[in-house]
Amino acid sequence: MRALIFDLDGTLVDTVYAHVYAWQRALAEAGLPIDGWRIHRRIGMSGGLFTRAVAREIGRPLSDDETEELQRRHGELFRELLPGRRPLPGAVELLRELREKGILHGIATSGRRPEIDASLEVLGVGAETVVVERGDVLRAKPEPDLFLACQERIGVAPEECYVVGDATWDLLAARRARMLSVGVLSGGYGVDELTRAGAFRVYRDAEELAESLDELGLPI
Amino acid sequence: MRALIFDLDGTLVDTVYAHVYAWQRALAEAGLPIDGWRIHRRIGMSGGLFTRAVAREIGRPLSDDETEELQRRHGELFRELLPGRRPLPGAVELLRELREKGILHGIATSGRRPEIDASLEVLGVGAETVVVERGDVLRAKPEPDLFLACQERIGVAPEECYVVGDATWDLLAARRARMLSVGVLSGGYGVDELTRAGAFRVYRDAEELAESLDELGLPI
Repeated sequence: MRALIFDLDGTLVDTVYAHVYAWQRALAEAGLPIDGWRIHRRIGMSGGLFTRAVAREIGRPLSDDETEELQRRHGELFRELLPGRRPLPGAVELLRELREKGILHGIATSGRRPEIDASLEVLGVGAETVVVERGDVLRAKPEPDLFLACQERIGVAPEECYVVGDATWDLLAARRARMLSVGVLSGGYGVDELTRAGAFRVYRDAEELAESLDELGLPI
Repeated sequence: MRALIFDLDGTLVDTVYAHVYAWQRALAEAGLPIDGWRIHRRIGMSGGLFTRAVAREIGRPLSDDETEELQRRHGELFRELLPGRRPLPGAVELLRELREKGILHGIATSGRRPEIDASLEVLGVGAETVVVERGDVLRAKPEPDLFLACQERIGVAPEECYVVGDATWDLLAARRARMLSVGVLSGGYGVDELTRAGAFRVYRDAEELAESLDELGLPI
């Protein structure tokens, strides 16, 4: 194993609950109330799939205009609710250690620039780090495209990569990309959900992962 | 089995994610940033235990004044974030069915009046239903006091009651009260977390529970 590919929201930055709440409120404002837990379990999947899931819950398709307006309002509420981003415990230190030790790694997120820029900034991630975002690929998670693009840009084989993610969508996409995966609890899923979705190990957060790199057979 | 004792937040009303976000923001404003998932997994435990858990995360004890101010600010943010309460799917219909069929039931919550009044109102719960709240007992969940007080007021033995809850705290408190328990996913825990905490069955939400009453051996 040679490389780690990280998800961003819920894995490196503490944004999941603000995303859930922003979606819940944007949907409620549009007259489309959906249970918080159902939104939570769909964070991190592609926006198209998310919208289809919402449509299924409310029992009718959403028009393109409705979808666009929901996404705009979600973004607006999210920025209001969470003006500053906060790295999850250990995330900044882990990324610094990987850079210092020359362990190959990258970030692959269903989020988009410029929305993700604030997260990358608080993480101390600069131009030296491979970051693949939604706009770089055709299809987001659980399709494997984001992870495959990241692995190509890092320059390693898929079989040499671990995906590190907090959501079942990361772990499903990892399997489809022929990568192993590691789960973290910092997005609010339980251990068994992540294990059953394919995680080889599950750690509490980036901090525990950093203390456990030797359990992953990486060249540290 | 003769009676059902329901938790309120996350079991009958869709309030968990607003509570998580309100706590996260109140704590961050006080200079005490704590990961969303750690707050989520502590919702529904007693306020005293919650505060001690927060103190543990930040590495120093909280003064009584700090605790009181945090609780006040959480309440304020929660009311701003969630001006209206929303019953979870099937909750209103389930409670109505239990009343109509004369199946004994009650509600036992770590919440307090008057904060819980809006939730009881949208659920259509009136004075005919036994409601035990934080102020009625000395210790909240996972101590068994709330459930025992509810069972006494309903007038059945603990062994004849199912607790229905979304959080591990409900299920631990049920075991300590010598009651069986049923989990619901509508508070955002996973199936296995609830099963391992002692749930005899786990349903998605009140709607699926209502369709499955015959699986519980209740006199319907």
